[in-house]
Amino acid sequence: MFVTVLLLLGALCAHKGHGQESEATQRPGHVSVVIIGATGDLARKYLWQGFFNTYVNQVKGGNTFSFYGGGQSSSDKATPLMFEILKGVSCPKDMSQERCALLKDQFLRLAQYRQLKTLEHYQDLAKHIEKKLQDEAMTETGRLFYLSVPAYAYADIADKINQSCRPTMGGWLRVVLEKPFGHDLLSAEVLASQLASSLKEEEMYRIDHYLGKQVIAKILPFRKENKKFLDPIWNKHHIERVEIVLKETLDVQGRMSFYDQYGVIRDVIQNHLTEVMMLLTMRLPSNLSSSEEVVQNKLRILDSLLPLGKNQVVIGQYQGYNSEVQLELNKTKDHISLTPTFAAVLAHIDEAQFEGVPILLISGKMLDKRVGYARVVFKNDIFCLQNQNGVHCKPRQIIFYFGHGSLQYPAVLVSKNLFKPVLMDAEWKEVTEHSDVSVLGLPVSDYYVHTPTKQHEAYSELIAHIFSGHKNSFISIENLLSSWSIWTPLLSSLNSAYPRIYPGGEDNGHMLDIHLKGMDISYKNEVVIISPDQTAGTSANSAKVLQGKFCNADMVSAWSEELVGQLAVDMQEAAEAAVLESGVFHLALSGGSTPLALFHRLALHHFSFPWRNTHVWMVDERCVPLAEVESNFRTLHDHLLHHVRIPYFNIHPMPVELNHRLCVEEDRGAQIYESDIRTLVNGSSFHFVLLGVGFNGHTASLFPGAKVEEHGQSLVALTESPVKPHQRMSLTFTAINRAHRVALLVMGKGKHEMITQLSRLKNSTDRWPVTNVKPDNNRLVWYIDYDALIG
Amino acid sequence: MFVTVLLLLGALCAHKGHGQESEATQRPGHVSVVIIGATGDLARKYLWQGFFNTYVNQVKGGNTFSFYGGGQSSSDKATPLMFEILKGVSCPKDMSQERCALLKDQFLRLAQYRQLKTLEHYQDLAKHIEKKLQDEAMTETGRLFYLSVPAYAYADIADKINQSCRPTMGGWLRVVLEKPFGHDLLSAEVLASQLASSLKEEEMYRIDHYLGKQVIAKILPFRKENKKFLDPIWNKHHIERVEIVLKETLDVQGRMSFYDQYGVIRDVIQNHLTEVMMLLTMRLPSNLSSSEEVVQNKLRILDSLLPLGKNQVVIGQYQGYNSEVQLELNKTKDHISLTPTFAAVLAHIDEAQFEGVPILLISGKMLDKRVGYARVVFKNDIFCLQNQNGVHCKPRQIIFYFGHGSLQYPAVLVSKNLFKPVLMDAEWKEVTEHSDVSVLGLPVSDYYVHTPTKQHEAYSELIAHIFSGHKNSFISIENLLSSWSIWTPLLSSLNSAYPRIYPGGEDNGHMLDIHLKGMDISYKNEVVIISPDQTAGTSANSAKVLQGKFCNADMVSAWSEELVGQLAVDMQEAAEAAVLESGVFHLALSGGSTPLALFHRLALHHFSFPWRNTHVWMVDERCVPLAEVESNFRTLHDHLLHHVRIPYFNIHPMPVELNHRLCVEEDRGAQIYESDIRTLVNGSSFHFVLLGVGFNGHTASLFPGAKVEEHGQSLVALTESPVKPHQRMSLTFTAINRAHRVALLVMGKGKHEMITQLSRLKNSTDRWPVTNVKPDNNRLVWYIDYDALIG
Repeated sequence: MFVTVLLLLGALCAHKGHGQESEATQRPGHVSVVIIGATGDLARKYLWQGFFNTYVNQVKGGNTFSFYGGGQSSSDKATPLMFEILKGVSCPKDMSQERCALLKDQFLRLAQYRQLKTLEHYQDLAKHIEKKLQDEAMTETGRLFYLSVPAYAYADIADKINQSCRPTMGGWLRVVLEKPFGHDLLSAEVLASQLASSLKEEEMYRIDHYLGKQVIAKILPFRKENKKFLDPIWNKHHIERVEIVLKETLDVQGRMSFYDQYGVIRDVIQNHLTEVMMLLTMRLPSNLSSSEEVVQNKLRILDSLLPLGKNQVVIGQYQGYNSEVQLELNKTKDHISLTPTFAAVLAHIDEAQFEGVPILLISGKMLDKRVGYARVVFKNDIFCLQNQNGVHCKPRQIIFYFGHGSLQYPAVLVSKNLFKPVLMDAEWKEVTEHSDVSVLGLPVSDYYVHTPTKQHEAYSELIAHIFSGHKNSFISIENLLSSWSIWTPLLSSLNSAYPRIYPGGEDNGHMLDIHLKGMDISYKNEVVIISPDQTAGTSANSAKVLQGKFCNADMVSAWSEELVGQLAVDMQEAAEAAVLESGVFHLALSGGSTPLALFHRLALHHFSFPWRNTHVWMVDERCVPLAEVESNFRTLHDHLLHHVRIPYFNIHPMPVELNHRLCVEEDRGAQIYESDIRTLVNGSSFHFVLLGVGFNGHTASLFPGAKVEEHGQSLVALTESPVKPHQRMSLTFTAINRAHRVALLVMGKGKHEMITQLSRLKNSTDRWPVTNVKPDNNRLVWYIDYDALIG
Repeated sequence: MFVTVLLLLGALCAHKGHGQESEATQRPGHVSVVIIGATGDLARKYLWQGFFNTYVNQVKGGNTFSFYGGGQSSSDKATPLMFEILKGVSCPKDMSQERCALLKDQFLRLAQYRQLKTLEHYQDLAKHIEKKLQDEAMTETGRLFYLSVPAYAYADIADKINQSCRPTMGGWLRVVLEKPFGHDLLSAEVLASQLASSLKEEEMYRIDHYLGKQVIAKILPFRKENKKFLDPIWNKHHIERVEIVLKETLDVQGRMSFYDQYGVIRDVIQNHLTEVMMLLTMRLPSNLSSSEEVVQNKLRILDSLLPLGKNQVVIGQYQGYNSEVQLELNKTKDHISLTPTFAAVLAHIDEAQFEGVPILLISGKMLDKRVGYARVVFKNDIFCLQNQNGVHCKPRQIIFYFGHGSLQYPAVLVSKNLFKPVLMDAEWKEVTEHSDVSVLGLPVSDYYVHTPTKQHEAYSELIAHIFSGHKNSFISIENLLSSWSIWTPLLSSLNSAYPRIYPGGEDNGHMLDIHLKGMDISYKNEVVIISPDQTAGTSANSAKVLQGKFCNADMVSAWSEELVGQLAVDMQEAAEAAVLESGVFHLALSGGSTPLALFHRLALHHFSFPWRNTHVWMVDERCVPLAEVESNFRTLHDHLLHHVRIPYFNIHPMPVELNHRLCVEEDRGAQIYESDIRTLVNGSSFHFVLLGVGFNGHTASLFPGAKVEEHGQSLVALTESPVKPHQRMSLTFTAINRAHRVALLVMGKGKHEMITQLSRLKNSTDRWPVTNVKPDNNRLVWYIDYDALIG
């Protein structure tokens, strides 16, 4: 029943796929294909068909094939099921019935089902393969295992394959994995390390079937083929925004056990839409088929994404979802699922090329239409002086249209007033006869439209790529982990967030419309408020800031977000007043993690801060090289200075490293900094000094028990910290107390105990160094958030 | 006939203007108004009416008035002409006929004409005023001279006023001047210094009647009143672009002697439209009536404008203009006027708040419609998931509509999907009943529309402001000169540029449509090419770059713009290759003016340059503090580093200043720099070194006759320049010749002689230091422009 057929293909005129044969043709031999989960949904729908297609295309390459279906079920049970599926595969449309029948018959004869449950089963499979190779005197090209099973089974199967099924005479091993690859960074890392103990990275093919879609696979070639048109406009100056949208009309019934654990972000956005985003924005590789370059350029984009948090996402859930969950997962009536079935995410790339360009990733179930596309909308760079209805006065966009929707076929669309694209590929053709439909706001006749001459199914494409060893259509491990490290914080921030409930279909109306607010995203329509999380802090009026007294000084108190907002406003006011008066603002900033939120606030919201006239000084520094992550200056640089336009000359890191050594007394770093202050800062009085307070009451790098009186009238001193790195450089209380204004920022429940103790003190004491902060002119303000104040 | 009437105003219910009375009410007395040019066009159309309006409004303030018309003509000739004008003034619409007749009669009785030609005439006028004050025992409030005469007469008249007409007993002197205030920076400075010898700045009122237009005067109050709505969106993240447009349908016939000398940019854009731009973009003064703050904030905007040059403007001239010039100015048939009657200018403000926001200033004669407006178009920050026709899916804009056009009245329009504006001013009312018209792409019913309750003529408003001494509706001298210093380079660049000829009216079609290309502007439609200047360098394909050999090394040659473009491309390629290979790109840059064009090219066009991975080193430095304008680093900073996002740690200025002194051997600056290079740069081999060559053949700071062999294997050395500042720090030939790639950039006719001599040399020589540039691996490329190569 099971016969290996060596196909002599001179007579056969098989359809030639693009590039699938490179390796196979180099080294003809035998390929064993093993689909584990051979009778499952995916195998039924796509995989067997994909392997048949590949078989049809590969037969003339000289390789021979065996196809093994595998699974937990016994052979008796599964064999008929599997062959029913196999009999259902279809031939290319342009193939004769006769030839189709021949090839299907051959394909069926090459296939068998084997139970693959225990290690012995795998060992038996291996013996079977080796015997066949020996019997028929074939060299081995390789073994392909397609794991169409739940992800929890991956590690075990990979282990068994590794133990028993590796080719022994030099053929390749390729193991194909389907998402989900974990559900967050940690689980992805665990899975990765489990798999890595059995398989090498180059042996693993992680499938994202979106990369097999022809339109998506065309993105990079399109960018390359049209480089001369795109180079001048593929940047922040020309792109208004990027939208990557996948709208579905279906619900999730029948997939609840999977879906309710994952939700739309893990199901679609973290993988498919993120991949599309990278293809659109990554630097164009000089060689499109260099996996290494493609991976590196993708990674660079992921690395330069601004962090995604709760302000970069809105979520929804269709109305019937929760009862479907209760029903399908046998939950009680009071069970509430917070799993989002709709999400819109706003991403930004922190690179000069795309700085400030909003990138929307949007997907949902139960929406009005089924459609998927990636759209690059260009800014209007035309000014029509007269007759504003001319064609070149219209909007301009490039759309990678995945299919469905009004157009109903996959296509690349380029507005006619943009450029006439070149698609150097016989597999694509221009569509010139258009039906009377509109695509994303413009009649289809306003676009140059290109579509594949033949539509290929994504899985068939990818299976062909697996055979040819083209790894850049697959997800590399660096790529995967990097993507999870971007998405995990956002997912965590949604842990207890309530999705907006939407009725589904046309009834959603404008309920899921999105509002972009700088770097933040929210629902446009605030009428239906389901979750307090979604609206917190969105309304400036709701911000309650308390004015009071603390330790005989002024105090401002609020919840952390409003507190930081107020401090930023106060700082800008001080800056503007100083610049108005003296043309310059001298600002001294502290290290530590507390001011980070302030730095972000200043960088992202205070566009009119007079940075050009601001000098930034350090309150204190750790004795480490400035560029090291431990350095206070490095933190300040990465979170603030790199994001605003401040002249190089106005930046004053502390000279902790001199003569290639750190904080050595003889190098006189403290004296150099003091001398810089005396030279540049009028009266050595900073306009604004921002301080924090440690748990032990230290401020700047002035720690309990330090003999601060020894600093005398010095402005800068070398000090010792009880924690590493011990050596510090710090402004002294003399310098701090000369400032026009000092702000002490204290946030978080962890500081409550310290704040309580401070409030009971009468006098300043070296046990609590912060009590020595007493600016001459009483211009000290405490900024304490409610967590620290109330506990 | 001439009687001073003291008006007792208890019984009169004069219309109360806003704020016109502050000074007058403080100090009632007599005001003498002198209009020089009393029967001219401006006086006839606007001035007498404006003074009458002011008189009507001021009479109850307790001041008394005399009105003197003055001019070159004899009293016999001019008096009847003037009184004819005076009889034509009209009263406010809501005034009774009876009262109107009374006030007009009084006004006529207060007025007289006097010849004002010689100094004696002015002296007589002064005597007349003083006698009247004495006779009627009046204190003097002040004297107002309105110079409605050609600008060339200003200095002389100001001198006569100063010599003879100053109030003697403490009243104010106010002299009103009309544009043009010069035709470029130099002439404006000359005029300013001439006037300054006679008048104090606070005595001069430079009129820009646009500042008297109600809608324009409302810009700042509107911004203040709607601050809470505008603050979050009045920045680069939300504003797509700003358009300030003044379209006229008329030609220039009858004004040629003025117009042909000035053209549309000087006539309208340098003053009116620039003022509007400042009002829209300046920082909102905390006190709107503080002239000082308004002036300072306006200046700050002018200072932060990116330079305007030939790439920021397109010009046009209506078809009939040239023959009108020939006719009206008695020119021959071969006379060609290049004066533009249409111009579109693209400005950018180099401040974080508006960075990258295109600001269009556009005006022209003989266009299809008469309309003036300033429009702020906001980015589309809504994503409509379903039903894209909802009102909030529409475009959003704020329009300050000066009048005419489809709306026909002045108004402030705010898209209803933006916010409902607040106009805290009884002089403005909301319009809620709309005709069926469309304003800039949206039906008027899509806007909140506010219009003045009463329309005031601009001159009347400004004359009232002159009386009340409100200087912020006038042009300060700093403002004027700063504006000219922005516009003069652009105007110079147009000296011999050919305007595009347009037929006028509807026939213009799309001929004057504008294309914004990053920082550059061009006509959209390239069909009608009149001027080679307009298209030079716009088409990338036309760039001809020659490859060749020079002094045994590779040479690239082209016209300067293409040469710099090629060098930038080559540099980016080197950068990308280095980053791909080693993750970092070490670039050493030279000082001097030659590389400036390259820096601009890199900053403005090379968005994907890997700055984040680039380290910038200096080839040489002058021994001056880094922040001084003479410093090479300062030049590099201002022209390149400040405009790209390069980490602080990657910037390596030469340590010429140590221990507060410059280039002292003992401070070991050269050794410190060398040590930094050895630490950071692999093998001390820079990836790319950019050099220039001086007239004397020097390169880096290695001058003829220097004993370079003394540098030995050092990478950095202190050197001596024959020109000031003599002390330099420089990379040595050892460092230069280790580089992976060295580019020698030579541009300009001035270098031709040197290039010729170099080409004849056989061997390297200290007389021509540049001949010592011989990188070990022969990777030297000369970039020589045609001017330098061909002479």
